[in-house]
Amino acid sequence: MRVHGTPYRTVWMDGATVHLIDQNRLPFDFAVESCADHRATAEAIRRMTVRGAPAIGAAAAFALAQAFLEAGRDPWPHARAARALIEGTRPTARDLFHATERVWAAAEAAPHGAAATEAAVEAARALAEEGVASCRRIGEHGAALVAHGARVLTHCNAGWLATVDHGTALAPVYAAAADGKRPHVWVDETRPRAQGARLTAWELAGEGVPHAVIADNAAAFLMSRGEVDLVIVGADRVAANGDVVNKVGTLAKAVCAREFGIPFYVAAPPSTFDAGVPDGASVTIEERSADEVHFQTGPDETGTLRRIRVTAPGSPARNPAFDATPARLVTGYVTEHGVFAPGELPAAAYPAVRAAAV
Amino acid sequence: MRVHGTPYRTVWMDGATVHLIDQNRLPFDFAVESCADHRATAEAIRRMTVRGAPAIGAAAAFALAQAFLEAGRDPWPHARAARALIEGTRPTARDLFHATERVWAAAEAAPHGAAATEAAVEAARALAEEGVASCRRIGEHGAALVAHGARVLTHCNAGWLATVDHGTALAPVYAAAADGKRPHVWVDETRPRAQGARLTAWELAGEGVPHAVIADNAAAFLMSRGEVDLVIVGADRVAANGDVVNKVGTLAKAVCAREFGIPFYVAAPPSTFDAGVPDGASVTIEERSADEVHFQTGPDETGTLRRIRVTAPGSPARNPAFDATPARLVTGYVTEHGVFAPGELPAAAYPAVRAAAV
Repeated sequence: MRVHGTPYRTVWMDGATVHLIDQNRLPFDFAVESCADHRATAEAIRRMTVRGAPAIGAAAAFALAQAFLEAGRDPWPHARAARALIEGTRPTARDLFHATERVWAAAEAAPHGAAATEAAVEAARALAEEGVASCRRIGEHGAALVAHGARVLTHCNAGWLATVDHGTALAPVYAAAADGKRPHVWVDETRPRAQGARLTAWELAGEGVPHAVIADNAAAFLMSRGEVDLVIVGADRVAANGDVVNKVGTLAKAVCAREFGIPFYVAAPPSTFDAGVPDGASVTIEERSADEVHFQTGPDETGTLRRIRVTAPGSPARNPAFDATPARLVTGYVTEHGVFAPGELPAAAYPAVRAAAV
Repeated sequence: MRVHGTPYRTVWMDGATVHLIDQNRLPFDFAVESCADHRATAEAIRRMTVRGAPAIGAAAAFALAQAFLEAGRDPWPHARAARALIEGTRPTARDLFHATERVWAAAEAAPHGAAATEAAVEAARALAEEGVASCRRIGEHGAALVAHGARVLTHCNAGWLATVDHGTALAPVYAAAADGKRPHVWVDETRPRAQGARLTAWELAGEGVPHAVIADNAAAFLMSRGEVDLVIVGADRVAANGDVVNKVGTLAKAVCAREFGIPFYVAAPPSTFDAGVPDGASVTIEERSADEVHFQTGPDETGTLRRIRVTAPGSPARNPAFDATPARLVTGYVTEHGVFAPGELPAAAYPAVRAAAV
């Protein structure tokens, strides 16, 4: 998508250099970090310069390709060490392991040294391109759900910054906007980390999509007054029964959408659908540092970044990072294969989606 | 209630001086502002040194009493000008007008000059004391709803800082704690103004009530995992049909509480019940400055208060301040007369409450 009018991806490889939009500095500063070797790229992944499972996967694939490029005639010892380093950066990111496995397998299948390196680079590029194509198809299928002038509510950031390009939850919005449908987006702030207010709002401004940031508390008010036509969110994982694990606060939006008769859609790439998890209740929800609730960071009036306390000093906080939305509250899943109702997912869409993900 | 172990009220009169806890400086700094004359007290009301309808009412009553004390043998011209000044500070605060009307009427009913002043002072003191007694009764009735070890979720600040003492939504918690029931409170941050994270958390810490601040997004997660036993919120207005207008975000908690089978209570003093408003939908919801969403203020690591931007620069925001919760989502209204179900309110509790409010 675009930054100041120029097309960008979140991560790309140019020769043996990997470039990443530095998401730690957004939305207050736009900068691209260029990583000359696999160690620098791995460090960027670790520092969350890149975030969002599909984007992390692409960055990891590129990092391993870099390692092959750096190595000599026998790339395997160097590549093996690099793979361990890369896989240690974000040990809970499944897409990262899928990516390194795929690049590794492509290299192993090649006849010998130089071909292995070539195969690794090609596999990394293909993985990134397939991710882009998958998101584009999610956008095409989802755009059909967005009527002219529709007011879409979204939560957290499932936009192009979370993927290599196009995004998941925002892909249908971008596709609808490209179709001239002039959608408007309500952007949940998404406390405590405020990915909505910081990243989603920044993305939408860059694409010229009309939007407004709201406190998470205001979503139900807008729904109750008929100012929300549909909700589209992303997902961190979709369980076998269709339950959706996503950023904390998603559940309340789904419950309220049902209360007010508003369609609630979940947009997700193949790697998100996980038949190995029976339901949302069986997912252990990560509890993150209370400091995310206690402190916020942003620029003061001089532009200097400041970290301030926003809670009563001495009071404790609790910080669950995700919640699980039951499948019965989901109107449909927007996938690269089409839009599926909850009942259809396990029988039809699911295995197809899984097959595509392998 | 207590501050550093010492009993305090939010506002009190000592001779001809009115003292108010400066709520603009909480929770990062505790200070009492002393107002030597009615002009200073009126200015304190205007600057929101005091907030919460019952507390504002008491401050206004004391300010008008000060005006009578300042005047000579014929207090009426001075008092009349003072009343206009006081009523102009927060023109939408109904309790403020109730308070000045009551003090004025008491003075008018007195036989002559000095007696009028004495009557005004007495009426102001009585108004404050009745407010305290009303909140204490709300606490007594509501404490019966709080089981031993109950985990109570609350939104915004309807604690003692919003009243003269005891509070409304928190009064049952304080009464239950005094009964040795050891309740635990989940404190909604309550973006955008964060009254929960700042004021409710500060209050509960002062009273030694176990609690934790949560992002507003986390409430539904806790409900879904069986970690919330009941919800108690305050109200800005209860309509004739029992609909509850309260701080934005209340509606989502009520909808989610119903979804997860959790009792949802509204605690309110008599002045909140307004038979003149037919239902929640007919209340115009105040939209406040977008800057409340864009900016937050708090101390940095050196203790210096900083105002930082927390949204993408250039993105607009929308900021509705209240929402309306339908009566059907309310389990019960905790009043000074007892706890009433929604169906009972218009027929039984309502007129009684109205009569008491006059």
